[in-house]
Amino acid sequence: MARFFKKREQNKGLPPGALVFIGQQKMEQPELYLIDYSKEHLEEKPIQRLAELEALRASKTITWLNIDGIHDTELIREVGEFFSIHPLLLEDILNTGQRAKVAQIEDTLLITMKMLNFDRETSQVKSEQLSIVIHQHFLITFQERSGDTFEAVRERIRGAKGRIRHSGTDYLAYALLDTVVDNYIYLVEHLGENIEELELQILENPDKEVLGKINVFKRELQFLSKVMRPAKDIPRQLLREEVSGIEKKTEPFFRDLEDLLTHVIESLDTYRDLTSDYLNMYHTVMSTKMNDVMKVLTIFASIFIPITFFAGVYGMNFDFLPELHFKWAYPIFWAIVIGVVISMLLFFKRRKWL
Amino acid sequence: MARFFKKREQNKGLPPGALVFIGQQKMEQPELYLIDYSKEHLEEKPIQRLAELEALRASKTITWLNIDGIHDTELIREVGEFFSIHPLLLEDILNTGQRAKVAQIEDTLLITMKMLNFDRETSQVKSEQLSIVIHQHFLITFQERSGDTFEAVRERIRGAKGRIRHSGTDYLAYALLDTVVDNYIYLVEHLGENIEELELQILENPDKEVLGKINVFKRELQFLSKVMRPAKDIPRQLLREEVSGIEKKTEPFFRDLEDLLTHVIESLDTYRDLTSDYLNMYHTVMSTKMNDVMKVLTIFASIFIPITFFAGVYGMNFDFLPELHFKWAYPIFWAIVIGVVISMLLFFKRRKWL
Amino acid sequence: MARFFKKREQNKGLPPGALVFIGQQKMEQPELYLIDYSKEHLEEKPIQRLAELEALRASKTITWLNIDGIHDTELIREVGEFFSIHPLLLEDILNTGQRAKVAQIEDTLLITMKMLNFDRETSQVKSEQLSIVIHQHFLITFQERSGDTFEAVRERIRGAKGRIRHSGTDYLAYALLDTVVDNYIYLVEHLGENIEELELQILENPDKEVLGKINVFKRELQFLSKVMRPAKDIPRQLLREEVSGIEKKTEPFFRDLEDLLTHVIESLDTYRDLTSDYLNMYHTVMSTKMNDVMKVLTIFASIFIPITFFAGVYGMNFDFLPELHFKWAYPIFWAIVIGVVISMLLFFKRRKWL
Amino acid sequence: MARFFKKREQNKGLPPGALVFIGQQKMEQPELYLIDYSKEHLEEKPIQRLAELEALRASKTITWLNIDGIHDTELIREVGEFFSIHPLLLEDILNTGQRAKVAQIEDTLLITMKMLNFDRETSQVKSEQLSIVIHQHFLITFQERSGDTFEAVRERIRGAKGRIRHSGTDYLAYALLDTVVDNYIYLVEHLGENIEELELQILENPDKEVLGKINVFKRELQFLSKVMRPAKDIPRQLLREEVSGIEKKTEPFFRDLEDLLTHVIESLDTYRDLTSDYLNMYHTVMSTKMNDVMKVLTIFASIFIPITFFAGVYGMNFDFLPELHFKWAYPIFWAIVIGVVISMLLFFKRRKWL
Amino acid sequence: MARFFKKREQNKGLPPGALVFIGQQKMEQPELYLIDYSKEHLEEKPIQRLAELEALRASKTITWLNIDGIHDTELIREVGEFFSIHPLLLEDILNTGQRAKVAQIEDTLLITMKMLNFDRETSQVKSEQLSIVIHQHFLITFQERSGDTFEAVRERIRGAKGRIRHSGTDYLAYALLDTVVDNYIYLVEHLGENIEELELQILENPDKEVLGKINVFKRELQFLSKVMRPAKDIPRQLLREEVSGIEKKTEPFFRDLEDLLTHVIESLDTYRDLTSDYLNMYHTVMSTKMNDVMKVLTIFASIFIPITFFAGVYGMNFDFLPELHFKWAYPIFWAIVIGVVISMLLFFKRRKWL
Repeated sequence: MARFFKKREQNKGLPPGALVFIGQQKMEQPELYLIDYSKEHLEEKPIQRLAELEALRASKTITWLNIDGIHDTELIREVGEFFSIHPLLLEDILNTGQRAKVAQIEDTLLITMKMLNFDRETSQVKSEQLSIVIHQHFLITFQERSGDTFEAVRERIRGAKGRIRHSGTDYLAYALLDTVVDNYIYLVEHLGENIEELELQILENPDKEVLGKINVFKRELQFLSKVMRPAKDIPRQLLREEVSGIEKKTEPFFRDLEDLLTHVIESLDTYRDLTSDYLNMYHTVMSTKMNDVMKVLTIFASIFIPITFFAGVYGMNFDFLPELHFKWAYPIFWAIVIGVVISMLLFFKRRKWL
Repeated sequence: MARFFKKREQNKGLPPGALVFIGQQKMEQPELYLIDYSKEHLEEKPIQRLAELEALRASKTITWLNIDGIHDTELIREVGEFFSIHPLLLEDILNTGQRAKVAQIEDTLLITMKMLNFDRETSQVKSEQLSIVIHQHFLITFQERSGDTFEAVRERIRGAKGRIRHSGTDYLAYALLDTVVDNYIYLVEHLGENIEELELQILENPDKEVLGKINVFKRELQFLSKVMRPAKDIPRQLLREEVSGIEKKTEPFFRDLEDLLTHVIESLDTYRDLTSDYLNMYHTVMSTKMNDVMKVLTIFASIFIPITFFAGVYGMNFDFLPELHFKWAYPIFWAIVIGVVISMLLFFKRRKWL
Repeated sequence: MARFFKKREQNKGLPPGALVFIGQQKMEQPELYLIDYSKEHLEEKPIQRLAELEALRASKTITWLNIDGIHDTELIREVGEFFSIHPLLLEDILNTGQRAKVAQIEDTLLITMKMLNFDRETSQVKSEQLSIVIHQHFLITFQERSGDTFEAVRERIRGAKGRIRHSGTDYLAYALLDTVVDNYIYLVEHLGENIEELELQILENPDKEVLGKINVFKRELQFLSKVMRPAKDIPRQLLREEVSGIEKKTEPFFRDLEDLLTHVIESLDTYRDLTSDYLNMYHTVMSTKMNDVMKVLTIFASIFIPITFFAGVYGMNFDFLPELHFKWAYPIFWAIVIGVVISMLLFFKRRKWL
Repeated sequence: MARFFKKREQNKGLPPGALVFIGQQKMEQPELYLIDYSKEHLEEKPIQRLAELEALRASKTITWLNIDGIHDTELIREVGEFFSIHPLLLEDILNTGQRAKVAQIEDTLLITMKMLNFDRETSQVKSEQLSIVIHQHFLITFQERSGDTFEAVRERIRGAKGRIRHSGTDYLAYALLDTVVDNYIYLVEHLGENIEELELQILENPDKEVLGKINVFKRELQFLSKVMRPAKDIPRQLLREEVSGIEKKTEPFFRDLEDLLTHVIESLDTYRDLTSDYLNMYHTVMSTKMNDVMKVLTIFASIFIPITFFAGVYGMNFDFLPELHFKWAYPIFWAIVIGVVISMLLFFKRRKWL
Repeated sequence: MARFFKKREQNKGLPPGALVFIGQQKMEQPELYLIDYSKEHLEEKPIQRLAELEALRASKTITWLNIDGIHDTELIREVGEFFSIHPLLLEDILNTGQRAKVAQIEDTLLITMKMLNFDRETSQVKSEQLSIVIHQHFLITFQERSGDTFEAVRERIRGAKGRIRHSGTDYLAYALLDTVVDNYIYLVEHLGENIEELELQILENPDKEVLGKINVFKRELQFLSKVMRPAKDIPRQLLREEVSGIEKKTEPFFRDLEDLLTHVIESLDTYRDLTSDYLNMYHTVMSTKMNDVMKVLTIFASIFIPITFFAGVYGMNFDFLPELHFKWAYPIFWAIVIGVVISMLLFFKRRKWL
């Protein structure tokens, strides 16, 4: 399957706004998990039916509903209705071939981006779509499969550490995004280390294996770039004036996030330059080697071909071949051969081939 | 014929605004098809003469006239007059060598873009020009040949599915554009899959055929880029303040369309990078192979050329060649030969050629 | 002579504003031709002395004076004085090494650009400078040599076709620019067709001739790009608010012109990419061929060099060379030779060289 | 360790705003040094405990506290509390993998950038993070290790030279930044000289060593670019209207600084282009050499292979080989050989290989 | 010495604003030359001491003081004091490693740029720094050495030609800049001609010398680009609203200057592209040649190696080698040899190697 672009074929011809899941189903049954908190209050539990949330709808506490598994379009439709989310936003949530973006329709804010993690088995980066719906008193996260990425955030809520319990949904959104971006940083750093290690190998022992590795890294960096570059715009889009829902005091945090993303992408570009440099280096080392091979061949051939001819001459069976009968012919033959060899060697020496 | 640029020669010297069809005629007789609808009302029929539309001119229903075949300049002139479309816009409609664009003259809006589809026989992408004229109560689509691209939209109108029957010509225009863009996405995805499949073949078996394929894909991507890149600006241009005719509530849909187009073009660029990478890879694999060939040649030549010389020496017919008469000469000859071979092999081993 | 940059040496050290013709004289005697028209009135005649125009100066008709040949600085000075054109503008008109641009000093507007035409004999694009001075009631065109480029516009004025007789000097300027741009389009299209034809030749029969052709086309495209790119800004500059002289109703025409120029330049860039691709393709095909050559050499050398050694061994004249006297020695020799050949062929087969 | 990107792994999962040192500890014990000055007054001393500064907090003198060693997070936390610096800023100070930037929260301004110095032993550029916190009456500098970079600034304060004693913390910040940028300039200049020296060596004697050197320089320039490019934005960001704390009369100095940085980065880019040019030159010289090698081989092989065949023919032992018994056979043989050699030489001459 | 970047080492650690000459001393004793003029009045003389200018300070005539030689920092300090020029501007004047720029502090305007001239002996472009200080009634030019570049401007002042005697210091500044830019144009044109001449040589006879030339031109163009690109911004910066001192009526002249600079830089870029194209062409021609060399080698080797083997076979001394005694063996041998040669030639013919 094309990795850089997700299939949308199912969607062709359907009315815009029709809810269709685009992607691969990655788990069996969707799981819903609720955390409801305020400065003094904390409640958390798995949710079976949305009706359980009815009571929280009117309360002023922060309600964070996490949904793992988005292939059940019926559930998503229900969630959309329950929290009155615009169909276009729901469509974005269901389309895992989505570009990172911020969308606001009325007072609902949607952030879509990719969560990345490195699969050590295939040496490939796997991506999963994360959608965050932000409203004044509730925040809903949609993930493609269950995982423990946000456990650290939950711990902070439980432990009432930092400012999270004192802040609104905007700060919670920031905390979640920060976790995702920390993962981006880790990934780039990890790839970077692996890439920088290749340099020595290219200079010492440039074989097909190294070439393969460079190309794999190049592909991964390209993939990361495609995922992270649009993500970089998210903080700026959130801080635009026409977007509501981000409080003044949370703004420095989002600006910090943007700096981090700028830094990651600059590093990414540096590593992309590096892989290109490595490919060139491989090429240059290769052609230097070829030159060496050619020199060896040329030296051997140019020295032995002429003297072989001389030997051939005196192996001829002409009746009248006077040199054959000279007494000193054989020593003179060797003298000539040695002379040719020495003068050839001097010739190559002068050309700096030896 | 130049594929990246359509002939305009016919037009040279004519006054601007003179109606001339620029392109290839792709069907016999133009076909006109009418759909007229409102929330409660639906009527559809093929049209022979424009006069049949007279009654609809004053009504407040949405009138969608589809015209397949634009080579009949007389017909286009009549349509232009009937709906009072500015001659410059008509000229744009007739010029199939047109860049995707939005033009507004007075209260008539014209969107011109390309519809693409993949011709499996020639493995080439074929393009056809689509022009959409948008007015408050009517919308006219001009296609180069008849096809069923918009059948899905018609079905939605008939079935009264979604919001289409409740909305104006702006939403209808969106629905049509969305269909075209869905096709773009499908195409890029399709090409992408084919391209990604080449990688293995390049590494395993890089021959002229692969090279040809890469070049074909490169050309197709270039063509797509030339078509899609200007199309990307259409939603933004429609949402500019000085453009009238797009209602507030339809705006999110056009913004969504822009996101889709951004995504498609980013993917396109990724695939263009990929084909360039593949060409480099091909080159590198090629020169690695050449290096191998050279090594084999050099090893054979360097080992056998010296010992052939030795054999030649003792094939000489000098009267006085003392070694010929030594008892152990022949075994010693072989010992020397084997010694030379072994030392050469060690030499190549040390250079890592073996 | 440097083609991409015109000599200015004559001008060095002269006061700015001094009138000096920079370029090559391309005709003998300057020719002046007048067309004076309004909705009802039309008069045209060649002009000998500027004084003949005195009567028209006060009239409200459109006065179009065309001057072929600009090497006569005295004439240009007179024209400048007669129509009170700023010396800086006159200097621009006389400098044929000028970049396409729009300049406005007081209420006089100057458009400078290149007219191009393809010289079939040298396969080179020839350029000629066109300057258009626009005032409310008169328009002066300066060309380097006489030609029939604007004959079509004159025909339209004579025939009173289109809106030209009802409009002002701004529309006349548009009509002239449109003619020039039509020529640009024709040229790019013509070059494009020739370029696209090269592809097959490169894949089938890449020789020095093709290489030369690609380089010639590359150079031509570079030249076109240098001429057309600044021309693209002309419509935008004319539509800027601080520029006076363009009426509201002529604006869509200039916007249309800008679209055309954008399209031409995009096509130009596509063709430049194409020539670069072709050069790479040439290179790749070349190195694929080299690889083939090397393989043939290696196969022949690797097979025959070892067996030639064997033949050499049994051509030696040692007294004691027991194999020489074995009965089956000769057939065994051939058996070994055939064995070596077959195993070599298998070796090359396995390496996919055969 | 990845050089282009600092580890952040320790930070993963921690709440944003938690103080963690990211980097390598470069000295034992942090050292604090105070300079307090005004027009008439000057006091300087090492500081053990922050409490010693209590008296200065209210005074209107300029208080410059320099802290060498930032690995002691507890100390940084104390400093942050003492001067009421926002936790996000403290986090930036502690993260040595930081991009050069300006951050303002409330009325505290933070400038973060890298100080560079060239390590002659490893021929590598070493970087160290510098953070400058600017408030109306105090300025705090954080360095990773103790050094004498700012000694010149201290001397100027002591000597009351220039305008430093008459100006505020903004001018002091400028003086410090100027010192850092002077170091940048020195570095680029130093690298530049070394790079320009390579040219001759590439043309004369292109071996692996030169190739290695070019690649090392390329890497260093890439590193410098990554450090300096974001630093270039610092002056502009400081001069933005929404940033407070920079007085009108200090502005020209910061603008001067920006010019310097622009100049440095342009030079950096020039040198990057140069290294790329050198790599290409290396490549071209290499392939010219290969061509020479091939020519020598071809000339030798093409001359001697045919005549060796002839010698071989007359070494055959056929009973009926009439030429063997001709009287002039041997001289004729030599005549033919010499004829072949001469015609071959002429052939190569004509092809300009000799 | 690094050519692309001037040493600043002397400056390290000095307070900003301290006057230090950065560059090479290019003449012995600074020379001061005064021209004082107004519409009716003209006075010119060499100046020994600044005190001689005291009388002119209050007058409303235009005072142009030219200073050749800027290594005497004491003199520059005095001039600065006499005309009250800000120390930062003086520092810029003394630093010959300065980027072209415009600086305004209070009502003093400083323009810094490079004057270029071509040294025919070394084929290198030499640069010299020009600083122009502009005040309402005086203008000071600082050059590194005495020269006659501005003699033409002086002549115009003397001859009262053009508008120079009627205008202010802004027009004088324009006249000087125009002279410098005319020199730029001449240089680019001169280099351009030399570069375009290389094309034929590359195609016909690509040797190391051509390669060297291309690289020299490439370097020169890079140097010119580094000098001219920042100069291009000077007119725009002068025309910005916040810059005072340029009168309305002089503005078109500066705009004209900007057009010239844009044109020069575009030409420069075209020539840079051209040198890159030439390098590629060199490479391609080179590898085409290599291919030819390889073909010749392969053809000779492949034809003669097999038949040499055959000759070797019948040179063997086996007792039982029946063919040796056949009557027609020798003619058959030749028949086979000729057969092999012909079939090889056909094989190469089919592969289009012949």
